[in-house]
Amino acid sequence: MTTLRALVLGCSLKSGSQESSSDLLGRQILDALADHDVDGELIRVADQNIKFGVSTDEGDGDGWPAVREKILAAQILVIATPIWLGQPSSVAKMVLERLDAELSETDPRGRPSMSDKVAVVGVVGNEDGAHHVIAEVIQALNDVGFTIPAAGSAYWVGEALGKVDYKDAGPKPDTTGESVKSLASTAAHLAHALASNPYPSE
Amino acid sequence: MTTLRALVLGCSLKSGSQESSSDLLGRQILDALADHDVDGELIRVADQNIKFGVSTDEGDGDGWPAVREKILAAQILVIATPIWLGQPSSVAKMVLERLDAELSETDPRGRPSMSDKVAVVGVVGNEDGAHHVIAEVIQALNDVGFTIPAAGSAYWVGEALGKVDYKDAGPKPDTTGESVKSLASTAAHLAHALASNPYPSE
Amino acid sequence: MTTLRALVLGCSLKSGSQESSSDLLGRQILDALADHDVDGELIRVADQNIKFGVSTDEGDGDGWPAVREKILAAQILVIATPIWLGQPSSVAKMVLERLDAELSETDPRGRPSMSDKVAVVGVVGNEDGAHHVIAEVIQALNDVGFTIPAAGSAYWVGEALGKVDYKDAGPKPDTTGESVKSLASTAAHLAHALASNPYPSE
Amino acid sequence: MTTLRALVLGCSLKSGSQESSSDLLGRQILDALADHDVDGELIRVADQNIKFGVSTDEGDGDGWPAVREKILAAQILVIATPIWLGQPSSVAKMVLERLDAELSETDPRGRPSMSDKVAVVGVVGNEDGAHHVIAEVIQALNDVGFTIPAAGSAYWVGEALGKVDYKDAGPKPDTTGESVKSLASTAAHLAHALASNPYPSE
Repeated sequence: MTTLRALVLGCSLKSGSQESSSDLLGRQILDALADHDVDGELIRVADQNIKFGVSTDEGDGDGWPAVREKILAAQILVIATPIWLGQPSSVAKMVLERLDAELSETDPRGRPSMSDKVAVVGVVGNEDGAHHVIAEVIQALNDVGFTIPAAGSAYWVGEALGKVDYKDAGPKPDTTGESVKSLASTAAHLAHALASNPYPSE
Repeated sequence: MTTLRALVLGCSLKSGSQESSSDLLGRQILDALADHDVDGELIRVADQNIKFGVSTDEGDGDGWPAVREKILAAQILVIATPIWLGQPSSVAKMVLERLDAELSETDPRGRPSMSDKVAVVGVVGNEDGAHHVIAEVIQALNDVGFTIPAAGSAYWVGEALGKVDYKDAGPKPDTTGESVKSLASTAAHLAHALASNPYPSE
Repeated sequence: MTTLRALVLGCSLKSGSQESSSDLLGRQILDALADHDVDGELIRVADQNIKFGVSTDEGDGDGWPAVREKILAAQILVIATPIWLGQPSSVAKMVLERLDAELSETDPRGRPSMSDKVAVVGVVGNEDGAHHVIAEVIQALNDVGFTIPAAGSAYWVGEALGKVDYKDAGPKPDTTGESVKSLASTAAHLAHALASNPYPSE
Repeated sequence: MTTLRALVLGCSLKSGSQESSSDLLGRQILDALADHDVDGELIRVADQNIKFGVSTDEGDGDGWPAVREKILAAQILVIATPIWLGQPSSVAKMVLERLDAELSETDPRGRPSMSDKVAVVGVVGNEDGAHHVIAEVIQALNDVGFTIPAAGSAYWVGEALGKVDYKDAGPKPDTTGESVKSLASTAAHLAHALASNPYPSE
């Protein structure tokens, strides 16, 4: 089985010198993927000088083209995002908007540019909002051509109206850990299956 | 100050003989409203033989017209709903669909039929989903003409991936109780303000 | 290549004797799947006496167990739903709630009961709301174990604030037809790929 | 009747030298408000050097504190946003995240800082997504303390899967224009009502 590649986009609002709970969950997903012949890396999006827009390159020092190269080189994309006001972070939304450009792009075989790529979502928040964040992120990623594996998400949130961060929470609940393992298993299986049996050209 | 009227629609999937956490939160909201010259009642929607549809009366023993009379007689509408899969219950959705009919109805002064009425939302779930449920319910209610008071929602959910019900949880968190009090205060104030200073006819 | 099976659940609020735009789109999806070795059928959910609930069988003449048998026998599930107030129909929500029960069910190999099954969504509305309906439906279906193929949705809506139905619209836009073809191609490919290369048991 | 103040935050992804459809709708809302003793201005958010974050001041040249002053000085806030992938723009999300800080702020009377302020939403897109954008924006604004007037939104979108911009569309539909007028009427009435009859201190 070929080793596949995963890219985690950490969509914290914070720049790189600050600890991020969504990065932490993203790294746990990478660790779990390593058990299934998938290696990879995590990028903190807020450090990449990504410009607002819906094209593949907004010019003027735009950091997106370099990120896009990494997405093109990966078979698994992981969006790791915090929840704010029950919704995905603006940084995650910026990433989705840049991926909107892929609706006009094709791969060397003339298929949509994201064909055979698998996407999953990791969500952390002080409190409530994970299901909706997952809904918005997978709808957008699926729309631009990613395939979503069975149970393709993992999340942690504290109790209603709480203020504790995942990175500061005590022992992590088994439930979140189980979801991470399950997500890694289905994502890796599906990416391997599509690598050996790709979607047809139209 | 005139006594105003509130109607709570309990949108549990369960019929009346079974305990419902959303009814419990709905009754707590009624209790809190009573401190602001608002009396009212709670109806369990699943017991009313409401038919699927988007008209004011679907005929054939449809229970909606009787519920609609109570809405017309109230100044405050409370939707109390459980969360399933991070979303409002199908029973709550059925209520919103029936209210869609109000887009074509007017009151005796020729205004939209829900003019001067205030709506709030109470949400309970084993776990995650409250913000999105609130978003969907207030968008739909606002669309058909209800006014939404500041911080017009209250919710309780357990920790991520949990299974405990609000009715079975131990001591209720102060946070949810505070939201209920705050919601009752703003809803009652706004309903009184609109009663004495109604929206103009066009 | 084995012939696979698709089940379309038509989630109109109307009972069977009335024409439904979502059924029409559902049948167009079935036609497009037939070109990829997939046969199937469409069921109008509102005619099946489905009870509100979150179990596999609510008893008392509940129509869900018969529908569930058809889902278990199919490799592709299509949810075809109208939009009301920018949201999925209450009938679609009732279906998702009943599928929530699958989180506790396993298949004969001890895997989650919906393993290897592919789900797609067809949405029609007088106007605006398709993206959000798709988001809610695929989030819920993915959560309970379905895999979502690349670009797994097709929709039609009229212009903003419009009132024309899909079934009454003039020549159907090529855009919706193209989406139907594309969705059928990716859904069938993925279902075939998972049939020959199933997700592992844990 | 005192003249009130409205602030429109234009949440286009484009910087100020480029035409924006959401700015256009925002200006139409300002014009309609002028008929109800409300004056105001529009700010293009993408030009203000707003930093990502959830505090009232992220330091280091952050443009938010100046915008926040204008919000504090206004009685009506209008969020005018485009739709991308069926969702609010990342710029709109950045604004909502900055407003999250208001949950910890109070006004001179000890009430939540956004008390008595009214919020409405204007949405434009090539196609589908307005209802969901409205849902997310009003949920977040209501959560942080804004009051939402009856039918507090206006939108325009083209036909399904279309590519025409509002600014380039031919004659604007009467439907959108009617919504703008209706929104201006209810927003102005409610802001005047709350100015003369403010929410109580707790």
